[in-house]
Amino acid sequence: MHSFYIEPPVDGQAALLPEESRHALKVLRLRPGDELCAMDGDGRRWRAELLYGGEDGAVARLLEELDGHEPPVRVTVYQGVPKADKLDLIVQKLTELGAARLTPVKLERCVVKLNARDGQKRRERLERIAREAAKQCNRGRAPAVDAPIGWAELLERLPKHELVLAPWEEAAGRRMKDAFAEASGARDIAVVIGPEGGMTPAEVAAMEAVGARTVTLGPRILRTETAAVTAAALAMALWGDL
Amino acid sequence: MHSFYIEPPVDGQAALLPEESRHALKVLRLRPGDELCAMDGDGRRWRAELLYGGEDGAVARLLEELDGHEPPVRVTVYQGVPKADKLDLIVQKLTELGAARLTPVKLERCVVKLNARDGQKRRERLERIAREAAKQCNRGRAPAVDAPIGWAELLERLPKHELVLAPWEEAAGRRMKDAFAEASGARDIAVVIGPEGGMTPAEVAAMEAVGARTVTLGPRILRTETAAVTAAALAMALWGDL
Repeated sequence: MHSFYIEPPVDGQAALLPEESRHALKVLRLRPGDELCAMDGDGRRWRAELLYGGEDGAVARLLEELDGHEPPVRVTVYQGVPKADKLDLIVQKLTELGAARLTPVKLERCVVKLNARDGQKRRERLERIAREAAKQCNRGRAPAVDAPIGWAELLERLPKHELVLAPWEEAAGRRMKDAFAEASGARDIAVVIGPEGGMTPAEVAAMEAVGARTVTLGPRILRTETAAVTAAALAMALWGDL
Repeated sequence: MHSFYIEPPVDGQAALLPEESRHALKVLRLRPGDELCAMDGDGRRWRAELLYGGEDGAVARLLEELDGHEPPVRVTVYQGVPKADKLDLIVQKLTELGAARLTPVKLERCVVKLNARDGQKRRERLERIAREAAKQCNRGRAPAVDAPIGWAELLERLPKHELVLAPWEEAAGRRMKDAFAEASGARDIAVVIGPEGGMTPAEVAAMEAVGARTVTLGPRILRTETAAVTAAALAMALWGDL
């Protein structure tokens, strides 16, 4: 069953967004009576059928509300800005794994320089990838994607989370499951992932000073995108629904 | 510290493989006395220093053996052959995560048709990616990469593993951690991942008949490559060293 984003429903009916209408009618050639999944983009999903399709768009009748498959834990990933298109991969995988928010962070060893206009285009692209991934994985809500933030902003945001985990290749001893044993009731978890060059000892110390706990992801050095996906998967398996 | 594959060591010295010599001398411009990591490709790693570099190659003196970072559990991933370059991503991530072997499998819903010659080129490419990933993640051994096998061969191989896990979107109830509680002592684990279209109920039933246990990876539908990486990460976190 294909999924489509809709306008706010009225009386059990909803118009598909313009681009979604085109895709449903011109590419997939759906006809009245065909089943589809309607998503409001804000967490709700319905089994629906196409009621009308024409030049002015498509309208669906909502038949039955479906589960939005939102996990019971909020996982926010603060990702040291990586090179090239790694963020594309990260946002797609984090959407499937159920993360709530992706916030790129400029850390000392980031090699990518972003200007404000590129940053905005980049963010729109990431939001589009997240929305498409949410459709494909049957999740009612795409994760929020922030514009890149700086170091000071990160240190302000971290203490607002119940639990902050910082996978670090020089951390030894505490594994993700040990962190779970220490704080199994946490429902708002932040994970901080270093860029390609890793986090500096000074960055780690400053984050620990505001409450972050370093964890190890094993003795092999994971690439930054592998670390992000692995940490999110483990957090969701331990605290969430995976 | 950069890593290089070497010929078998003799008297505490070893020649770098020809391509590795070129990379060390021409690209990285290492000089005698510079430190490097030497790998025999079979699990052993050494801190070493460049002894000699010339037209006929490079030779290193081995100073101290390093940990090969091989996990205490063998994880074999049987991957339903996916489209395009997803196998590249999968083999790279499985190497970092510590998997022992990747075996592509032709399942009913695979859409890719492989001929024997393409298959051989593809396999060489995957082996190269695995070897490069092993260098980068400080792992002494790259996972073995098989040529694609068929369904009959899969059913013969599965019972040879101690534990066979088959993540399936229609499985409910048993999560990876439940499988761990049932068989925490397993040291040779197979994971079977369906292709883009998933596994058929008949395939799942046949695998269960030879001892496979279905598990859920949560209510969101993971793409095939996300499922492979997630299942390997969870297996390594539960049974291994991650």
